[in-house]
Amino acid sequence: MSIYSTPSRTNGGVKWLRFYLLITVLPLAWQGCSLKENPPSDESVHSDFVYQYSILSALQAGVFDGNLPFGQLKAKGDFGVGTFNRVDGELVINQGKRYRIRANGSVTEVADRDSTSYAMVKFFKADTSFTIQSAGLSMDQLQRQLTSLLPANDLYAIRLKGQFSKLTSRAPGAAQKPYPTLNDQLTRTQVVFNLTQTTGVAVGFLVPTYMDKVNAPGFHFHYVSDDLKSGGHVYDFTATQLTVEIDRAPGYYVEMNTNADIGKVTL
Amino acid sequence: MSIYSTPSRTNGGVKWLRFYLLITVLPLAWQGCSLKENPPSDESVHSDFVYQYSILSALQAGVFDGNLPFGQLKAKGDFGVGTFNRVDGELVINQGKRYRIRANGSVTEVADRDSTSYAMVKFFKADTSFTIQSAGLSMDQLQRQLTSLLPANDLYAIRLKGQFSKLTSRAPGAAQKPYPTLNDQLTRTQVVFNLTQTTGVAVGFLVPTYMDKVNAPGFHFHYVSDDLKSGGHVYDFTATQLTVEIDRAPGYYVEMNTNADIGKVTL
Repeated sequence: MSIYSTPSRTNGGVKWLRFYLLITVLPLAWQGCSLKENPPSDESVHSDFVYQYSILSALQAGVFDGNLPFGQLKAKGDFGVGTFNRVDGELVINQGKRYRIRANGSVTEVADRDSTSYAMVKFFKADTSFTIQSAGLSMDQLQRQLTSLLPANDLYAIRLKGQFSKLTSRAPGAAQKPYPTLNDQLTRTQVVFNLTQTTGVAVGFLVPTYMDKVNAPGFHFHYVSDDLKSGGHVYDFTATQLTVEIDRAPGYYVEMNTNADIGKVTL
Repeated sequence: MSIYSTPSRTNGGVKWLRFYLLITVLPLAWQGCSLKENPPSDESVHSDFVYQYSILSALQAGVFDGNLPFGQLKAKGDFGVGTFNRVDGELVINQGKRYRIRANGSVTEVADRDSTSYAMVKFFKADTSFTIQSAGLSMDQLQRQLTSLLPANDLYAIRLKGQFSKLTSRAPGAAQKPYPTLNDQLTRTQVVFNLTQTTGVAVGFLVPTYMDKVNAPGFHFHYVSDDLKSGGHVYDFTATQLTVEIDRAPGYYVEMNTNADIGKVTL
């Protein structure tokens, strides 16, 4: 496997050297920045924060309806993941375009009037990016490399654009009231998609451990293919060509879901 | 013990009735509101959010220096609690006035150029308030009553203004590098103040369980006396007259401390 800023035919040694430089230099560079950095003004800070609507433990407890129309979510970010009221599909937002991947495999654009019960978005501006070409890079290999590359304790938006020889994803079916827990709903209704030779974009986040309950620590990606024919919550992939873009967030917003069901669950 | 909106000499029965009405009606009223409520615009949402600088688990791990001057914190709220670089005292912000209570018991105003390593602030606008008169209301009794009064799963700013026959508080000594953990620093340096017959204000928050690690779930109050001669982080009190003001926050935002020490600790 080789990693370099733009695809080339340089020999493996040079490519590995560049990869290790990325791994070792970037964290130091970022620490260096953080030493000099003063907190930016409100405007610049807020526009670079992650915005989250509702919290994961509420969604897990069965609070499947929210009061935030996507027309309003636009003001919070042009990139992100989430779900819909009744958990009716997986949300992908990339470059301001919103897609819903349903359990029947369909990919449709999302109307401003539709609402979300859980979403995590950001205005995406990559701090760093690199391209990987590989005979077969697994999701686990990539995540281990990113974990070693990125300073811990921070929150990152990550975009993966490229070619996947295999990609396994899922989407849940829409829930009916009375709503079950999220685990029960997924167990009963989710459909798994085994995609092969697919080209597209996986958008997602690396969430620090201290955001547990509010969110899920670790990596989380939602995928949509360039032909808008497939996607979903990503379980696993094997990538042959991947452009990785990383955008560190200096902070995050959490807005509580105002749906009355929040008052009926123990979080 | 009796609770009513303004001190009066009505009999205990009527006072208790009013108290139970508060307990039973307010949560329903708030649920009612939350049903009708649409998410407010960015401006109104953000101005009513709690703002937090750094996270508690970072402070607990010994990240005692921050890069946020109080001159900038002003833009985030006029009410709150926190500490200072080197954990040199307890912070009280009330009605825009900032006070530092040090381990020597002194209360001093805080300069714009001073910086904090951890602070939690809000623009305080009470949603509800009531007055308590009691032969002796303990902090624990009040907290149990507020817990039964307030819908769970939300974040609240709470101001307690009144007369205390007893109030126990503490302030830590300033740390020297290399910094220990917060627990070690408190064990070694904190001074406990046993105040009696003191009149003043305790400012603080009720934090939901899902904010664990980022903050400390439960109640947290910092006190300053009206004569500006005593205060600190509140351990316990016995109140004889108390005006309780409660301000629910529809959300919160967290800005990570940019101090390089963040990269050296496991959160």
